[in-house]
Amino acid sequence: MKVHKQPMRTIWLDETGWQINIVDQTRLPHEYYVTALSTVDDAAAAIETMQVRGAPLIGATAAYGMALAMREDTSDEALNNSIELLSATRPTAVNLRWALDQMHDELQCVAQEKRASRAYEKAAQLCARDIECNHSIAQHGLQLIRAIAESKSTDDPVNILTHCNAGWLATVGWGTALAPIYAAREDGIDCHVWVDETRPRNQGAQLTTWELANADVPHTVIADNAGGHLMQTGQVDCCIVGTDRTAANGDVCNKIGTYLKALAAHANDIPFYVALPGSTIDWQARDATDIPIEHRSETEVTHLWGKDNRDRLINIQLTPDNTRACNPAFDVTPATMVTALITERGVCNASADGLRSLFSETQ
Amino acid sequence: MKVHKQPMRTIWLDETGWQINIVDQTRLPHEYYVTALSTVDDAAAAIETMQVRGAPLIGATAAYGMALAMREDTSDEALNNSIELLSATRPTAVNLRWALDQMHDELQCVAQEKRASRAYEKAAQLCARDIECNHSIAQHGLQLIRAIAESKSTDDPVNILTHCNAGWLATVGWGTALAPIYAAREDGIDCHVWVDETRPRNQGAQLTTWELANADVPHTVIADNAGGHLMQTGQVDCCIVGTDRTAANGDVCNKIGTYLKALAAHANDIPFYVALPGSTIDWQARDATDIPIEHRSETEVTHLWGKDNRDRLINIQLTPDNTRACNPAFDVTPATMVTALITERGVCNASADGLRSLFSETQ
Repeated sequence: MKVHKQPMRTIWLDETGWQINIVDQTRLPHEYYVTALSTVDDAAAAIETMQVRGAPLIGATAAYGMALAMREDTSDEALNNSIELLSATRPTAVNLRWALDQMHDELQCVAQEKRASRAYEKAAQLCARDIECNHSIAQHGLQLIRAIAESKSTDDPVNILTHCNAGWLATVGWGTALAPIYAAREDGIDCHVWVDETRPRNQGAQLTTWELANADVPHTVIADNAGGHLMQTGQVDCCIVGTDRTAANGDVCNKIGTYLKALAAHANDIPFYVALPGSTIDWQARDATDIPIEHRSETEVTHLWGKDNRDRLINIQLTPDNTRACNPAFDVTPATMVTALITERGVCNASADGLRSLFSETQ
Repeated sequence: MKVHKQPMRTIWLDETGWQINIVDQTRLPHEYYVTALSTVDDAAAAIETMQVRGAPLIGATAAYGMALAMREDTSDEALNNSIELLSATRPTAVNLRWALDQMHDELQCVAQEKRASRAYEKAAQLCARDIECNHSIAQHGLQLIRAIAESKSTDDPVNILTHCNAGWLATVGWGTALAPIYAAREDGIDCHVWVDETRPRNQGAQLTTWELANADVPHTVIADNAGGHLMQTGQVDCCIVGTDRTAANGDVCNKIGTYLKALAAHANDIPFYVALPGSTIDWQARDATDIPIEHRSETEVTHLWGKDNRDRLINIQLTPDNTRACNPAFDVTPATMVTALITERGVCNASADGLRSLFSETQ
């Protein structure tokens, strides 16, 4: 993705060679602001406050968080404490645990004096792997979009509905759900994206719109309520979403509201695709009942950030004073409602057999 | 409903005996502001800008709008022009057309000098009828809530999910979907309401919360995305919503997003009830494909009103500059997904036979 005409990642080493730069996603789309992480606490706070979000990018930030930790203290105690600190930031996204496991396995057998440099190398490797994975997801997903484009009898674009942000900003590069759309665009396929605003944090309205505009992909933002109507009235050709954790049976845990769109797609015979890197699969979770659902702050529902008419970021209250809110951040889409999973190794059924057919080493 | 400890309607004649007072619903919940309508243009603008909204209240306001029109000019031309003006304000709610038909039938055969007083009488009668209807809906719906309360094996409250605002504020008094909840509360049944915020205009977050707090009914606001998860996890006992227009086959057209909740209720075997006065049935619409869906302004999606930290009403922009939005205001819930219709004449199946069994004079 190019930002201000420069090809950029969402997380990178700054000129010091050890500090980590991220794009502060709480300020987008109104401000593009790069902030530096200097300590493992900075990294944990960036994940917790959602300056970075999206399962793959959370994993990448945690990996670099471990590198920042090792730079200060290479003891076993620091290693374990830092993993514990970072693990606790977000409970649902499994990439976080996956990345921390990778870092732990890499670092625990390494001599202390080599831990810092090895941690930076491993984090960089995980980031490179994320981009590679997503590029493969893009290519596999592209085939599905091309098939829809070829089956259309009119010149209308392929209308794709997406929920939340599973794009460049959710990963180190490319994205997961949006990656096939970027590939289709490069391939000359005419696409249009329906962007669910994705309350309460509006990652669709704020991040996906910004990203798609930046990549020159035609798109229209809609209230989360509107997708069912658009599907009923033939205005959606397929849905593509990401996932924060996929159970071994193909159940998908993703941003709250995904389930409602899957129900509507199912009822209207519209393909519902979920794009994911293998690192998002939780082989320990037999089905989604094993996945913990994060509950977030009530104020995410009762208050909202936006830009006032003087371009200042302002927080407003939507509800009466003292109104209580409930804010589950994720929901579960049963495998039976998922048409297919798009992974870096190809497209498969959302089922235990489907997943095993691509990831046979996990059996 | 009591407001500031006084029993109130949502629309009433002020002390002049001819001006019409309404509660400006665009300022709730942050400001309770009563505004006067003095002309038919005022009435049309109040409906169009959603100072008043909700199918029954739109009908009542249109009826009084005709009275204001007749007060100024009792000619046939004024009669027809005013009906045309008011009809054009909102296309989906059929009560508007119903109320205007009632006014037209009443006034066209009346001598011109009597038209103004007759119009005021008829509007008052329609308002009284609305309250009576809603009181009956309350009593019929109460039986359904009581049955749920009695079937619960725990002491938990009856958890009812509602979408948008189909309460006191959507009618002249009582409400439709919320009326059974008020009746249950009076009857000593422990209820808790999940309030969908109902983007883009947030009638749930702004109006239903205000109303339920005012009536002392426990409630929790949720993002529209959350209802599916709550239903999957056993936290919803039933859904009750209103409707802007019901087709003769029982298809229900209601606020955008209703369909998604009906799908989730259906998938999780949760009763999905729709409360409506008979005036909301469009006997001409064989099914919902005949119902026009209103599309509203893009800025309702891209911008939002709320209260800043100095208690000022502020409009903020949520999306990047120049982002396009699509804003269908209603969707259709097929009759097959509706467990039952709650009308002033009793509870029936959402089907042509069900409706005819209660409204036999329409056959």
